[in-house]
Amino acid sequence: MLSQVYRSGFQSVSFRQRLLPWVQSTALSRSHRVQPSAIRHVRSWSNIPFITVPLSRTHGKSFAHRSELKHAKRIVVKLGSAVVTRGDECGLALGRLASIVEQVSVLQNQGREMMLVTSGAVAFGKQRLRHEILLSQSVRQALHSGQNQLKEMAIPVLEARACAAAGQSGLMALYEAMFTQYSICAAQILVTNLDFHDEQKRRNLNGTLHELLRMNIVPIVNTNDAVVPPAEPNSDLQGVNVKAALWALQGGTSVVIANGTHPKVSGHVITDIVEGKKVGTFFSEVKPAGPTVEQQGEMARAGGRMLATLEPEQRAEIIHHLADLLTDQRDEILLANKKDLEEAEGRLAAPLLKRLSLSTSKLNSLAIGLRQIAASSQDSVGRVLRRTRIAKNLELEQVTVPIGVLLVIFESRPDCLPQVAALAIASGNGLLLKGGKEATHSNRILHLLAQEALSIHGVKEAIQLVNTREEVEDLCRLDKMIDLIIPRGSSQLVRDIQKAAKGIPVMGHSEGICHMYVDSEASVDKATRLVRDSKCEYPAACNALETLLIHRDLLRTPLFDQIIDMLRVEQVKIHAGPKFASYLTFSPSEVKSLRTEYGDLELCIEVVDSVQEAIDHIHKYGSSHTDVIVTENEKTAEFFLQHVDSACVFWNASTRFSDGYRFGLGAEVGISTSRIHARGPVGLEGLLTTKWLLRGQDHVVSDFSEHGSLKYLHENLPVPQRNTN
Amino acid sequence: MLSQVYRSGFQSVSFRQRLLPWVQSTALSRSHRVQPSAIRHVRSWSNIPFITVPLSRTHGKSFAHRSELKHAKRIVVKLGSAVVTRGDECGLALGRLASIVEQVSVLQNQGREMMLVTSGAVAFGKQRLRHEILLSQSVRQALHSGQNQLKEMAIPVLEARACAAAGQSGLMALYEAMFTQYSICAAQILVTNLDFHDEQKRRNLNGTLHELLRMNIVPIVNTNDAVVPPAEPNSDLQGVNVKAALWALQGGTSVVIANGTHPKVSGHVITDIVEGKKVGTFFSEVKPAGPTVEQQGEMARAGGRMLATLEPEQRAEIIHHLADLLTDQRDEILLANKKDLEEAEGRLAAPLLKRLSLSTSKLNSLAIGLRQIAASSQDSVGRVLRRTRIAKNLELEQVTVPIGVLLVIFESRPDCLPQVAALAIASGNGLLLKGGKEATHSNRILHLLAQEALSIHGVKEAIQLVNTREEVEDLCRLDKMIDLIIPRGSSQLVRDIQKAAKGIPVMGHSEGICHMYVDSEASVDKATRLVRDSKCEYPAACNALETLLIHRDLLRTPLFDQIIDMLRVEQVKIHAGPKFASYLTFSPSEVKSLRTEYGDLELCIEVVDSVQEAIDHIHKYGSSHTDVIVTENEKTAEFFLQHVDSACVFWNASTRFSDGYRFGLGAEVGISTSRIHARGPVGLEGLLTTKWLLRGQDHVVSDFSEHGSLKYLHENLPVPQRNTN
Repeated sequence: MLSQVYRSGFQSVSFRQRLLPWVQSTALSRSHRVQPSAIRHVRSWSNIPFITVPLSRTHGKSFAHRSELKHAKRIVVKLGSAVVTRGDECGLALGRLASIVEQVSVLQNQGREMMLVTSGAVAFGKQRLRHEILLSQSVRQALHSGQNQLKEMAIPVLEARACAAAGQSGLMALYEAMFTQYSICAAQILVTNLDFHDEQKRRNLNGTLHELLRMNIVPIVNTNDAVVPPAEPNSDLQGVNVKAALWALQGGTSVVIANGTHPKVSGHVITDIVEGKKVGTFFSEVKPAGPTVEQQGEMARAGGRMLATLEPEQRAEIIHHLADLLTDQRDEILLANKKDLEEAEGRLAAPLLKRLSLSTSKLNSLAIGLRQIAASSQDSVGRVLRRTRIAKNLELEQVTVPIGVLLVIFESRPDCLPQVAALAIASGNGLLLKGGKEATHSNRILHLLAQEALSIHGVKEAIQLVNTREEVEDLCRLDKMIDLIIPRGSSQLVRDIQKAAKGIPVMGHSEGICHMYVDSEASVDKATRLVRDSKCEYPAACNALETLLIHRDLLRTPLFDQIIDMLRVEQVKIHAGPKFASYLTFSPSEVKSLRTEYGDLELCIEVVDSVQEAIDHIHKYGSSHTDVIVTENEKTAEFFLQHVDSACVFWNASTRFSDGYRFGLGAEVGISTSRIHARGPVGLEGLLTTKWLLRGQDHVVSDFSEHGSLKYLHENLPVPQRNTN
Repeated sequence: MLSQVYRSGFQSVSFRQRLLPWVQSTALSRSHRVQPSAIRHVRSWSNIPFITVPLSRTHGKSFAHRSELKHAKRIVVKLGSAVVTRGDECGLALGRLASIVEQVSVLQNQGREMMLVTSGAVAFGKQRLRHEILLSQSVRQALHSGQNQLKEMAIPVLEARACAAAGQSGLMALYEAMFTQYSICAAQILVTNLDFHDEQKRRNLNGTLHELLRMNIVPIVNTNDAVVPPAEPNSDLQGVNVKAALWALQGGTSVVIANGTHPKVSGHVITDIVEGKKVGTFFSEVKPAGPTVEQQGEMARAGGRMLATLEPEQRAEIIHHLADLLTDQRDEILLANKKDLEEAEGRLAAPLLKRLSLSTSKLNSLAIGLRQIAASSQDSVGRVLRRTRIAKNLELEQVTVPIGVLLVIFESRPDCLPQVAALAIASGNGLLLKGGKEATHSNRILHLLAQEALSIHGVKEAIQLVNTREEVEDLCRLDKMIDLIIPRGSSQLVRDIQKAAKGIPVMGHSEGICHMYVDSEASVDKATRLVRDSKCEYPAACNALETLLIHRDLLRTPLFDQIIDMLRVEQVKIHAGPKFASYLTFSPSEVKSLRTEYGDLELCIEVVDSVQEAIDHIHKYGSSHTDVIVTENEKTAEFFLQHVDSACVFWNASTRFSDGYRFGLGAEVGISTSRIHARGPVGLEGLLTTKWLLRGQDHVVSDFSEHGSLKYLHENLPVPQRNTN
């Protein structure tokens, strides 16, 4: 049984203290007490302003993780006064209230047992009474002046209990009207503290609530404000919420406290919590099995910093050891992989199963790739990029350093894990890995091997595997913890991550609309070879050709015919651009959009009048990935190379060269179409940033002021040339 | 008068066609027709799904810009069926409806005249009737089976007009109940198409509505569905909205069509529109005076691309010309500046007025700075960073290129404009400038001069001044148009922009919590000099010292006393860290947080036991800006330099050297605490990215495959060493 209390602090604590034991009594009784860690958590909790929620699991076990909340059967939603009433405490916050009723109804109609603990009668009554008083005043005044001065009149001070009495009926009528919208019947329960002290009354109340829930009725519980002593002002509202959470925890009930007034979330805060989203603060007396993702982030940061201060040879050694483990522990890896494959059988399509599966030969070539990364890592971290003598004995150095903590999100392929781990180790970065659920067993063993390799130099924690329960969307919001996100997978994955990332840069490309412009001075054979290689060799790649731009003069020449013949032989489906179509009597199907990534044996062909028009077309419809000119005229080629504003611009070469390995960058991190940091194919350098080291004797800037004793020299000093990598 | 219609398409067009002329008749009559440009706009409008809004200005003039909408007096909110009803078309979307009532009430209580055009009676009635029928069925079944099978029963098909009749009373009661919450009186108006055809009826209706508005009552208008013919299904809902917009435009009424169902905005969509935020699509028959910001973005992109292909000497020439204009046109500039100062008088505090004011000497030193930028720009764009021979006759080059389009947002200082313009010109970037309202006249003339300078090489449009009406928040969302945002101003500005930027990187630093660690082996005199320079020279700077970490062994030594004496002389207020406080009998006030940027003559002092503890402290509380060690022990210093993970790490040098000019980077763009792209003090290089040029003969990747004829060489070729800058 899950009980969820959604509240903020206007009501007296003791009221809720009485209610929560009831929640407890409906769950199986538990003797556990709140653990010290939970209390520490509560103490550090200080910036969430408005709402509270406690929870317990079916069969008396608390929920350890938010993802389990969706199994909740009974949910108590406690509305704090701040949620229910308007900012001026006069009248109800209708929009919020209605959306809460909407959410409660949705959950009730899913078959859960919902309970609402509400306040608001005072505010409702206050508004109503004030209006009545103003109205009667205004009628009197109007008799004299004939003017409506409603707005100018002083607001009378009203007694809270009178307001409560006047408001209760209207509040319930409003709830009734709203719940009726969802075919839900609501019932009113008015209680006071004393009702909980009397054993008989408690039993009665218990019975009533059980009966209501059994009949699919939502009980709406409120204090009988009209008969209780006036509430004492309580300035420590957050404290009240936390106390409520602790009470619920003692009853074996998990709690979520969330802000119910933020306009961006209030429309779905309750349903989001039940879906397991990271809304508000989650309290549970059950300690989750592993570390939290926040703790993992800290471990990766600390481990990464240690990794970065190792010698390059030590980092290479770790990678070599990991490569050895991949072959030595082959049987265990394949066994784990078999488990994944068996569980995925029938649930995944054949191509996905193939991506998921590992084999001896895959592991061997993975190990070879890792050794290449180890080799190329020697010259990455700590390379001096720039040296300046600022003054005598004051020297500045700019050196490469790791970026910090990377989050790499990859889809089903488990072979991604050791590769990404090796890249992170080579560049000295901490790493959070988030793999797909379908590869759980494989990822777990591969991660253990990575940590085993790291432990030879005491940096085991630099690489963390994030629990599959964590939502990618939530990870993408940890901007204090993660410095760069690298999605490895489909372009859809990249797009989703780019959308979800809040304040964290994402490295990758979501589109590859590559162009080839065949100039009027192109060579027939070269053009045909280049188009075939660019389009047909591997059409699903992001660096494959998507749009062929042909100079108008080439139409109906042998060159043109030869290209078309080749495309026909290769069974490439042609889509005609509007201008191309207008030149033909019988044209192929006209393109829907000139900005299409087919990713298949399909090609858009369009006609242009000049190299300038080709460039304009590329700027208008391209994705700044890779664009090529085919021509024998060097001047035209250079014009194209200078003017096309893409990450890669080629002359007489296939688009498919756009690749880290082919560029000679060593290990391939990916291809970036972002315009800052790494652009185009990215090697290890994309995982590095720089820091500035300044070594002086006792240099202060005031010595360099107008009348100071020193002058800036700013002499560039020689920088060691980099090795071949 | 502004009329705003908020709708989507369930109702028949003709109904609204009749209503809109009424809106028109209450505004002054206008003979303008919709301009072709407006119709083009409408045609391209295709991805906003749910709502519509038209508007006209007081005295019969339409609003040309959203920012004027806040002056709207009369607002018609038309709720589309999709907004009012739930996804299953059965029952009302209560949360949305209530928040609409809430927003309408807020606007009404601001003194506007609100009108609501609603639908939803059919949906409301459908839900109600279905429930009745199911209930009566279930009672009958229950008599036989004793089971409640409500959920399993088939839903009867109901006639729309019967539903409307059954729903109308309940819908109005609900509106009544909700508006009462806000002390607002609502009135019901039921109309049919025929009512608009009859001149007498129209006059009556007009009179009734006027009377209601005069009495501060919100008229709620609905079709009298029970007496009209059944609605025809209309699949082109968007078309209906657009037609509604066009009708309103013809009446001199401006329109906004917005999505009313998106959970993230629906709680404030109407108030946002009236506040001038970029929600939905704005239709107006009045063409705004200048180009839209989107057009400006395109001009800056195109102009920037042309700028980038100029020779470096030509870019330098433009900057020199701008420097000349600043001195030649001094009188005009100062005159414009005087206007700003006069308008700001009394509204701005003295320090802000000082920042706003220009002078001959300021202009002269600006011109000198510009000439320095011109000199340093020679080696920026097109510099070769890397050359690789991939194969015979296949050579790869990585060259620097501009980032693209920069958005620079600066506060009151108008002298920022020429400086930023020169930086953009030097780096070949297109530029959107957004200055403060208070500097409007100064910025306008300075921008004209920048364009005059640019026009000597035909690239006038590369720099655009964005209209002051545009909201910074809206600009920060133009991710398709802007590649990098650079806020120049307070750290608050930077924080705001970082928060507002959606998918666009922001270069800057929001915090500068710099540390100095005085090691046990520090020299007394050096430490005192370095602390004084770092803290006292210019305490408001981001590179000023905020926390002094002192090795425990130094406590009660002459070194410690000398530093404390110096701080006392300099009148620096000391805050003690918890550990430092514990060592003292009478300690100064204890710090509230160890992570504080004082920006004033205040300093936190804390004690550490070792260099490692100092590093841990810096990682925990620092902002990765600039951190310094003072020691005579080279080994300790190198340990600190390697392990501290900040943008700038110094040994025996003042924190204040952390500055682009002092580093010898030439022109100063700012200091970045971001971990990707530029880090630390940023020179022109931070405004550059790279592209890859590959020159081949007819190279295809298939020749390099396993059995191909070619092998990758990947030879690093020499790169020309950079000049001193």
